[in-house]
Amino acid sequence: MGPEVLSPQNDSIILKLWQKENTVTAEKIERFTVGRDRELDLFLAEFDVLGNLAHARMLESIGLLTQEELSALQQELRHIYTQTQDGSFVIEEGIEDVHSQVELMLTRKLGDTGKKIHSGRSRNDQVLVDMKLFTRHRLFEVVEATDKLFQTLIRRSDQHKNDLLPGYTHLQIAMPSSFGLWFGAYAEGLIDDVVQLNGAFRLANRNPLGSGAGYGSSFPLNRQMTTDLLGFEGMHHNVVYAQMSRGRTEQAALSAIASLAATLSRLAMDVCLYNSQNFGFIVLPDDMTTGSSIMPHKKNPDVAELLRAKTNRMKALPMEVTMVLSNLPSGYHRDMQLLKEILMPAFDEILDCLDIANFMLEHMQVKQELLADAKYDLLFSVERVNELVINGVPFRDAYRQVGAEIGDGTYQASRNLQHSHEGSIGNLQNEQIGQRMAQEIAQFKMDQTARALAELLVP
Amino acid sequence: MGPEVLSPQNDSIILKLWQKENTVTAEKIERFTVGRDRELDLFLAEFDVLGNLAHARMLESIGLLTQEELSALQQELRHIYTQTQDGSFVIEEGIEDVHSQVELMLTRKLGDTGKKIHSGRSRNDQVLVDMKLFTRHRLFEVVEATDKLFQTLIRRSDQHKNDLLPGYTHLQIAMPSSFGLWFGAYAEGLIDDVVQLNGAFRLANRNPLGSGAGYGSSFPLNRQMTTDLLGFEGMHHNVVYAQMSRGRTEQAALSAIASLAATLSRLAMDVCLYNSQNFGFIVLPDDMTTGSSIMPHKKNPDVAELLRAKTNRMKALPMEVTMVLSNLPSGYHRDMQLLKEILMPAFDEILDCLDIANFMLEHMQVKQELLADAKYDLLFSVERVNELVINGVPFRDAYRQVGAEIGDGTYQASRNLQHSHEGSIGNLQNEQIGQRMAQEIAQFKMDQTARALAELLVP
Amino acid sequence: MGPEVLSPQNDSIILKLWQKENTVTAEKIERFTVGRDRELDLFLAEFDVLGNLAHARMLESIGLLTQEELSALQQELRHIYTQTQDGSFVIEEGIEDVHSQVELMLTRKLGDTGKKIHSGRSRNDQVLVDMKLFTRHRLFEVVEATDKLFQTLIRRSDQHKNDLLPGYTHLQIAMPSSFGLWFGAYAEGLIDDVVQLNGAFRLANRNPLGSGAGYGSSFPLNRQMTTDLLGFEGMHHNVVYAQMSRGRTEQAALSAIASLAATLSRLAMDVCLYNSQNFGFIVLPDDMTTGSSIMPHKKNPDVAELLRAKTNRMKALPMEVTMVLSNLPSGYHRDMQLLKEILMPAFDEILDCLDIANFMLEHMQVKQELLADAKYDLLFSVERVNELVINGVPFRDAYRQVGAEIGDGTYQASRNLQHSHEGSIGNLQNEQIGQRMAQEIAQFKMDQTARALAELLVP
Amino acid sequence: MGPEVLSPQNDSIILKLWQKENTVTAEKIERFTVGRDRELDLFLAEFDVLGNLAHARMLESIGLLTQEELSALQQELRHIYTQTQDGSFVIEEGIEDVHSQVELMLTRKLGDTGKKIHSGRSRNDQVLVDMKLFTRHRLFEVVEATDKLFQTLIRRSDQHKNDLLPGYTHLQIAMPSSFGLWFGAYAEGLIDDVVQLNGAFRLANRNPLGSGAGYGSSFPLNRQMTTDLLGFEGMHHNVVYAQMSRGRTEQAALSAIASLAATLSRLAMDVCLYNSQNFGFIVLPDDMTTGSSIMPHKKNPDVAELLRAKTNRMKALPMEVTMVLSNLPSGYHRDMQLLKEILMPAFDEILDCLDIANFMLEHMQVKQELLADAKYDLLFSVERVNELVINGVPFRDAYRQVGAEIGDGTYQASRNLQHSHEGSIGNLQNEQIGQRMAQEIAQFKMDQTARALAELLVP
Repeated sequence: MGPEVLSPQNDSIILKLWQKENTVTAEKIERFTVGRDRELDLFLAEFDVLGNLAHARMLESIGLLTQEELSALQQELRHIYTQTQDGSFVIEEGIEDVHSQVELMLTRKLGDTGKKIHSGRSRNDQVLVDMKLFTRHRLFEVVEATDKLFQTLIRRSDQHKNDLLPGYTHLQIAMPSSFGLWFGAYAEGLIDDVVQLNGAFRLANRNPLGSGAGYGSSFPLNRQMTTDLLGFEGMHHNVVYAQMSRGRTEQAALSAIASLAATLSRLAMDVCLYNSQNFGFIVLPDDMTTGSSIMPHKKNPDVAELLRAKTNRMKALPMEVTMVLSNLPSGYHRDMQLLKEILMPAFDEILDCLDIANFMLEHMQVKQELLADAKYDLLFSVERVNELVINGVPFRDAYRQVGAEIGDGTYQASRNLQHSHEGSIGNLQNEQIGQRMAQEIAQFKMDQTARALAELLVP
Repeated sequence: MGPEVLSPQNDSIILKLWQKENTVTAEKIERFTVGRDRELDLFLAEFDVLGNLAHARMLESIGLLTQEELSALQQELRHIYTQTQDGSFVIEEGIEDVHSQVELMLTRKLGDTGKKIHSGRSRNDQVLVDMKLFTRHRLFEVVEATDKLFQTLIRRSDQHKNDLLPGYTHLQIAMPSSFGLWFGAYAEGLIDDVVQLNGAFRLANRNPLGSGAGYGSSFPLNRQMTTDLLGFEGMHHNVVYAQMSRGRTEQAALSAIASLAATLSRLAMDVCLYNSQNFGFIVLPDDMTTGSSIMPHKKNPDVAELLRAKTNRMKALPMEVTMVLSNLPSGYHRDMQLLKEILMPAFDEILDCLDIANFMLEHMQVKQELLADAKYDLLFSVERVNELVINGVPFRDAYRQVGAEIGDGTYQASRNLQHSHEGSIGNLQNEQIGQRMAQEIAQFKMDQTARALAELLVP
Repeated sequence: MGPEVLSPQNDSIILKLWQKENTVTAEKIERFTVGRDRELDLFLAEFDVLGNLAHARMLESIGLLTQEELSALQQELRHIYTQTQDGSFVIEEGIEDVHSQVELMLTRKLGDTGKKIHSGRSRNDQVLVDMKLFTRHRLFEVVEATDKLFQTLIRRSDQHKNDLLPGYTHLQIAMPSSFGLWFGAYAEGLIDDVVQLNGAFRLANRNPLGSGAGYGSSFPLNRQMTTDLLGFEGMHHNVVYAQMSRGRTEQAALSAIASLAATLSRLAMDVCLYNSQNFGFIVLPDDMTTGSSIMPHKKNPDVAELLRAKTNRMKALPMEVTMVLSNLPSGYHRDMQLLKEILMPAFDEILDCLDIANFMLEHMQVKQELLADAKYDLLFSVERVNELVINGVPFRDAYRQVGAEIGDGTYQASRNLQHSHEGSIGNLQNEQIGQRMAQEIAQFKMDQTARALAELLVP
Repeated sequence: MGPEVLSPQNDSIILKLWQKENTVTAEKIERFTVGRDRELDLFLAEFDVLGNLAHARMLESIGLLTQEELSALQQELRHIYTQTQDGSFVIEEGIEDVHSQVELMLTRKLGDTGKKIHSGRSRNDQVLVDMKLFTRHRLFEVVEATDKLFQTLIRRSDQHKNDLLPGYTHLQIAMPSSFGLWFGAYAEGLIDDVVQLNGAFRLANRNPLGSGAGYGSSFPLNRQMTTDLLGFEGMHHNVVYAQMSRGRTEQAALSAIASLAATLSRLAMDVCLYNSQNFGFIVLPDDMTTGSSIMPHKKNPDVAELLRAKTNRMKALPMEVTMVLSNLPSGYHRDMQLLKEILMPAFDEILDCLDIANFMLEHMQVKQELLADAKYDLLFSVERVNELVINGVPFRDAYRQVGAEIGDGTYQASRNLQHSHEGSIGNLQNEQIGQRMAQEIAQFKMDQTARALAELLVP
């Protein structure tokens, strides 16, 4: 008798034991229940291997694997990891998911030793830890792509700090703004998105391994050890809660993604408006617009519009998770499997949108001397009032005088702007904004996590 | 000069004229803008052909096509229609959408005549009419699948009208119910879903053809003629509104689908609960449950859980459309292209769920004599009170007496049920419910629509 | 023994019998559970009286009330109805809801006869029928207010059918439109909102009375009779489904309201944009704008903005109901009480928004000769191309020639518009649109319902 | 000439200058635009005073107020602050909001000095800073109430660590759990809610003061100084972004509240289920249940149901904000005023729910020896298999043997549980969970903020 026989998962390694009879409807049911799992699971493969590596080392530490068994498993798992990286890893026909595939590969090579790795683990906590590692990894990618867009925005803000732009409130011409302010505003907005991403990251960065099916196990597992090996900030202590974090983790990640998407959609709305002939503040590169076969004057901002549409749609993602989870009592339900289909494509989508937004901002041309248009003279009415006041005219009189000047057409815009305080046209503080972003990103400790995982992979 | 030269679409038939330069980024932009269009458009092909057939006949009637040109176009379009039905229709590499593909096929065969069909039409109203026809068609399918499920529910209700079930309020044991009532309740609920589907159907069943890009055209189009040819209830009169109906049509269809999904999700929740050992009211067929490799007592209702999850998720669909449309000013925006990705897969999903729900209900086993369990004696406490009252005990005294009997364990359930009014245990009125469903479905006039389309297709 | 003693509700008429001990926390719990019920229930009072009147007549018809008892009850109920109409009806201190208040008033006057009216009814179906009657009534009001706005839009459309407006696609100047088209488009849009409202109305227009707590009763109720007396289209047959319609009715009503709100929000967005100096298509009345104490040029469209915000917010209402209902098993849950707080204020809100929108549209001033601005010359490029084509220039050459003209500044807009087909600038079809609206509104059969209720009230 | 004359806000201090004519419709418009502002603004009063105090000190530091003027303003503002605390502060009839009221009070007492405080500030950044301070303050309250509930959960977990409970997966009896685990799981869940609250808090804890109407001002403001005085973590640097943070702050706060609400709603669902006779795991105190006047056996968990409903409804709150903000271009829009109506009542609601949840958990009675019921024997089947294995039976044989035992009724549950790893039944780690909560709460630095504000208030 060896420890592997204690595992509740033993019998399900390759085949679904429970498929008690093969009916004509099996295929229909299979399609309905498996869904997109096999397709999506390919993206979980590398994380499943990492989880296996950590679990194996822990099992050896508590005597459930011998040193030799561990070595054999590690060697094979690292080999599979390589396959996940070079694209040669596949889920074979008839194998229902990535976990079964990895199990199969281990058992083929190592026989009973391959089975032993499943001691003290349930399919539930195995899936959970894979999803945690996957989510954490992809959140890193989102943060990096966000930073790239941020740097572009800051660069363009610096570049155009002297290019004035009408500032609007209520869509009414209000006061002078600048492209420096406009680009910089979206840059600073991305910092707050990174703050939200960090909240999601912290929820993803907790170890559920060892929680079994949500009620723990009778093995003397060392959960702190797998927590450290996988570079987690800490563990989900309570095993019932570890299982309950399923759904919450996805929800938090998608809420943060939705927040980022909202920033991009507002940016895209501005671009579409500024590209309208009625505003005419920017020129989009030809690749990003479509014309009309009949109207040569049109430069339809299709890319900006689709960016707006895609990011707006993403704002519904957290609601999809909420819908699935609402009023489910505690304990695992198969409903949670569907969360993979909601979460996993969202990362590709937001990364795509960040990439396109970055491309658009890099190539967007800014029109200069916009405020020379007489229509925008009114932007400076406050400055004109202030000028009179400084020359001794009481405020109310000055206000009325400027009003009268506007009325009878004698008003002349006083274009001498002297905004100098923190964050204003003359003092964008892009440097301080850049420092804040760097600080927020540092909190993700990406290097530290990478080192932990590298140690697992290096023989 | 022929009428075809008046068409704004001429130049864009095959190539995107406006692609002014071929940059390295073209592919990135292409991928972002085309999205899933080529894949989804395959499902629009048959409707594009129908729209073309109607448009061509109308053009001939106003002198923009000759009788010979019309005949040639009809023959070729009917040929393409056949291809859409036998699966041989493809969108060729490099062709961006279904409309361009059909155009290309016509031009290859008929040369200039193939181009003439685009007179008096814009890509916008062409897409719109395709989406209307598609949506109408798939709503028919949903109604038919809903009726199939309805018939199963009624059948099972009749079959189990004498199998009692505990009725709950507040999840507390309340009064006697029956499987007859339970199945029948969901059947009647489906009628109201069909009412909602009809609201969506009526919005889909309006002709936008002839509205051009939302501002009409200078051709003397006969919009009533295409309305009749395509079997629409009527047209969207105002051309600006015709374009504005984009998004609204999708929204209405998805709201109705979400309503239906909500009915299914509640049914699935009941099934999951009733399948729990703590209720134990039903037995699910083995194909629809999974066991555990270690716990032979488990019959996890995975299919019901996934049905619940999928239908719950679908309840967020209308919100996705809302997100895309919110605060878009009037006039077409490319954002609306994304609606196809939201709407089109939803039909497959709901049909799938209806099919599985039907299968589940057909094979679900109902436990009998459930109320024999002493735990459910309390269901009959009202009957016991009534019995005492009928024998002359004042109500308040009867109530206190039964309370005391329950307290000291002498209470005996009086299981003599005499519910006879409309819709109660003893009088399910499944026949009346069936008649209502038939009436609601009749309002869709599916046959009439089918006849109109058949006439278009028959030489 | 009289029939009243059979009523399960008897004992709870005034006091909550079950309040077994009076703890210090009673108030906290009371506040949490009663919520806004007493405030909202005032609006249910008249419908509670109507429900009582119908129920009483039915009880008499099956022998559970004598003719004299019925007369006394009717007289008293009609008296209470008068109070609900003149504003003198109040829910007294210590009475938890409208149903208890009406019961109390009847019992004070009529003693035991007042109690007898509760035979064969549960609090659940009493609340349900009140909500159905309330919802139906308020949907009528929404339809009427929608029609009022519709008439204003049609009138303004007719009035401004010759005032041209730039038409946009992608927010790019596209083709000529008109205020006639723009106003008319929103008018036609309201028809589709009325179609959605009708779907909700049909769900509200079904009688749940007699379903008790969702499991019927042992009394030989005549549910068809109360259905007819209350002017319902029909009954919810299955008693379990009658209870299940709770939530669905609210959901459908709020979905229809959200659809109408979406129409208004898009209209408000257009108004805000058209009011911007960069568009400058309309002038809002001074009462509807706010200025700035410093910038006399500003006319902030606060009313339009708040209209947009309020109607946009309303689009989340159906989601609130969905949230409350998700994954609740069948059978009544107290959760459903909260739906009143979601549904009831929504009617006031949408009616308010319809009223303000109507006021705004009545007083909005339309700028004329907008297309005289050279910026809009490009709107006519298609007409210029067509003109050349008609004069014999091949289309491709004409297209290139106009492109070249635009490029070198020699392009001259050909402002001769000849759009004549159905729904185009020259043929708005407002009459047909008006007929459709009238037909849709006729389906509500408001007069018929009013007659039924009047009969209940007239001695 | 004094600095006050430079303020754009001067003229609007008390009256709405722009009300150019008094029409009969003024009241209608007033009601529509003011909405619930006057009612809600009472809750902003104390924060408006704090913002004024900081702004005044900054103005003095840059020479726009004299030392004497500052002293007078401080004295008066502190007096008003006292009124906001003792409940005597009111917004007078005819005054539209709290800001105007405070201005009026200052001007009444101090004349021109009262006006000077508005230099270098716009109504926009004044409202923004009030909302930031309000939101930050109320988030503190939510965190404290969450901690109180957390402590209750931990206490009950410790108290019932030996009271076993059936553990479910798929709503199927699965493995042994305990009330210790169940209470503890929700406790640990609250930590992750506090993490989300911290993300929202950080967004609320940034100073927008000095951003004016979103485009800064020409005064040499010292924004770092007001940032420090008001105890903010930092400022929103870019003035355009400061304005853009409106809506985002509300969104983040409501997302965090929704996350907390989701935890409570799941807890409430468990309670409703566990209170059902079919589970029967807990007994709710009489004050928290309602009975039926006819069925003495019923203990309807109304409080838990309403807790579930209210918290479920709150999950739609972030969507309401999203609806209002979607596709608004950058720059202030009046739409944002509506966000107050969404955000402000949400704090009361969640605090109410936390309070009731705490009360419910404190008084809930836990049933003991639940697993003695033979129905739950199956929970121990894994233990029985393990027992056989340990005694030398191969796993597959053991599995089959237990299956057979279950089948023929000879199976005997082996109730010897030995779960000892971190977070399992035998090792709840409530101490570690408590430490984590303390660490997360410490990050809010409530004391530090309180000290900053106290300094502003102390003469």
